[in-house]
Amino acid sequence: MFVTFEGLDGSGKTTQAELLAEALRGEGHSVIATREPGGTPLGEEVRRLLLEGMEMSAWAEAALFAAARAELVERVIARALEAGHDVVSDRYVDSSLAYQGHARDLGIDEVYELNRVATRGLLPDVTFVLEVDPDTSAARVGKSPDRIEREGRDFRQRVLDGYRIVARKYPNRVLLLDGTRPAAELHEEIRGRLREHL
Amino acid sequence: MFVTFEGLDGSGKTTQAELLAEALRGEGHSVIATREPGGTPLGEEVRRLLLEGMEMSAWAEAALFAAARAELVERVIARALEAGHDVVSDRYVDSSLAYQGHARDLGIDEVYELNRVATRGLLPDVTFVLEVDPDTSAARVGKSPDRIEREGRDFRQRVLDGYRIVARKYPNRVLLLDGTRPAAELHEEIRGRLREHL
Repeated sequence: MFVTFEGLDGSGKTTQAELLAEALRGEGHSVIATREPGGTPLGEEVRRLLLEGMEMSAWAEAALFAAARAELVERVIARALEAGHDVVSDRYVDSSLAYQGHARDLGIDEVYELNRVATRGLLPDVTFVLEVDPDTSAARVGKSPDRIEREGRDFRQRVLDGYRIVARKYPNRVLLLDGTRPAAELHEEIRGRLREHL
Repeated sequence: MFVTFEGLDGSGKTTQAELLAEALRGEGHSVIATREPGGTPLGEEVRRLLLEGMEMSAWAEAALFAAARAELVERVIARALEAGHDVVSDRYVDSSLAYQGHARDLGIDEVYELNRVATRGLLPDVTFVLEVDPDTSAARVGKSPDRIEREGRDFRQRVLDGYRIVARKYPNRVLLLDGTRPAAELHEEIRGRLREHL
């Protein structure tokens, strides 16, 4: 089982990914938890290029994310799934569809195609998108935003719109949830949705 | 006019790219000369990751080259062409087709697709592939090969085979030339071929 969490920074996805991994482990599953960009030595180098402020074009940004993702799939995710582990990832391909495809206006289908090739078509079984509005996102991220978080409110709104489009495009895989609810309550809903879904 | 030079390291492509740029300038053309990977601040960072020995999967390598290429197209090549300059590049998309697509066995068509998306389909008007055998390539590169050059003779042979497949696939764009001929003579042939071609 491959589950991903998506949403704006500050949406609570990191917390929910951790809670889910922990809960699955508590039930005796072997779980590999990972995050994007990063999760491999190459990925951490790419993460640094992406988030530390170097100027780059939108397609270069999309291809760098795809490179980090290709490495993560090859070295971690595909191997873990083949070995029978569950994988829970904090961000995956839908981040690129929402951020680069929609918010940066490259086109969701074209960005999907770039990632389809780089990841050899590996998609999650279930994706939870935690919705919070752009102001909640900014307030939760606080005072040290990275290069992409610095884009501002309109950009975060477009990312959120992008996630909603992605959820409509892949209704069998992508579930939208209210990220402003208390973490424990949201976690219970995620557990229930996962049981229904599988 | 967008012209690219391709071949193994040590094939003479850098010399021929420089000779052509110089000759075109001598005829009054405005010429932008560039090289891959690199040619932009992001590209130089990516070049460092690619060539300095970090281990990475083949698809991550292909996507990193595509990222550097996307940046080069956006910041340099497309702008130069739109402004009416000629562009001469030492390597471009055919390097990825030969090295990652064929020699690393990812598939020429899939690697092309990755690059088509990242470069928004920008292809050269003419591409010169300078053929030298793998031993000549190794002898010319000498004692400080980079990560990719260290792959060895069989790999270089597969790259050469890859270029030949690419030339058959795109016969109207890609021309194979004998890279072991004297540089001045080869330059004259390239000038002649370019006049015929355009």
